[in-house]
Amino acid sequence: MTQKTPRRPDNTRGRKRDTTRTDAILKAAASLLLEVGFDRFRIQDVATRAGSGTGAIYRRWPTKESLIIEAIRNMPVPEAPVTDDPVADLRAIVAPRCISSAEKPDLVPGLISAMRSDVGIEKVVKEGYSHEYMRNAIARIIGDDHPHLDLLSELTPAITLLRSSFTPESIDPQAMTDEIISLIQSVAKDTSS
Amino acid sequence: MTQKTPRRPDNTRGRKRDTTRTDAILKAAASLLLEVGFDRFRIQDVATRAGSGTGAIYRRWPTKESLIIEAIRNMPVPEAPVTDDPVADLRAIVAPRCISSAEKPDLVPGLISAMRSDVGIEKVVKEGYSHEYMRNAIARIIGDDHPHLDLLSELTPAITLLRSSFTPESIDPQAMTDEIISLIQSVAKDTSS
Repeated sequence: MTQKTPRRPDNTRGRKRDTTRTDAILKAAASLLLEVGFDRFRIQDVATRAGSGTGAIYRRWPTKESLIIEAIRNMPVPEAPVTDDPVADLRAIVAPRCISSAEKPDLVPGLISAMRSDVGIEKVVKEGYSHEYMRNAIARIIGDDHPHLDLLSELTPAITLLRSSFTPESIDPQAMTDEIISLIQSVAKDTSS
Repeated sequence: MTQKTPRRPDNTRGRKRDTTRTDAILKAAASLLLEVGFDRFRIQDVATRAGSGTGAIYRRWPTKESLIIEAIRNMPVPEAPVTDDPVADLRAIVAPRCISSAEKPDLVPGLISAMRSDVGIEKVVKEGYSHEYMRNAIARIIGDDHPHLDLLSELTPAITLLRSSFTPESIDPQAMTDEIISLIQSVAKDTSS
């Protein structure tokens, strides 16, 4: 009996190369999405950023939406720093969201529009929706069993979304960060009194 | 010199009839908008609701968007009740917004999409954007000079928008109302301590 020896080294190399390419495309898509938003997201720009051809992208994801869905699914979960200053740690995750809502006020409203026009995008966003990292950071300040922990965990994404949708011109990211942190600190004080 | 006597009585009646018709159409458009949202807003349904013909509508507003803009501009400003129980008064304006976000989770996300696709809608919504009535009701509980008054005035619209956009299935309007009122009350307590 003769058996073909599978050309393992080559196959492995090929698979590895393929995975690396796929990863590069997904990372490029995610960073482009966060940078330009949904309306100006173009496959050609993903290709340029990933150093790949558009063909390599379309072979993997036949539509722009399917690439967006996969890129969102692969976005890293945000993590909060943990130092001995929990207020500074919270500020380190609240401030970037406030800055983003000031500099890219259309990003989350654009996401909402995209979710409304594509059920696949809606599904993947809702599946990945979590403010656990925000919750953990706030719990370190006000306590894990504080009655307002859930509501306060949603405060930053909620206020940034509201202002970027309706009053983007009034967003001062530094002042907004201070307002949010200060409210959370005052709630913490209230518990201990 | 002969001068035509203007037929005043008739003209006046005509103008009045016309104003009444215009008002009825705008009221019908506003109520339909709040009921079915932007995507399912149809001129034919406005006409039915206003007891008018579609011709009467198109003569005044050549496009659906122009009617929507005028209807939004004419929406009454919400008012908060003022009794001797400020917490109950606040609840009376927070609860309906929470209920609306549970029963019609697409209403505000739909508004955001409409604002993104029509600059006229965006302009009129931003011009009319105000949470003054919410601010006044909260000021009666926590004081007019409370450092968190602005942020707390936006809390209800922000949280309802966030949840209706990303987690509509988790909206319990009663629980959400309680969470919001309770946080505001705890902040008030903090000040007096």
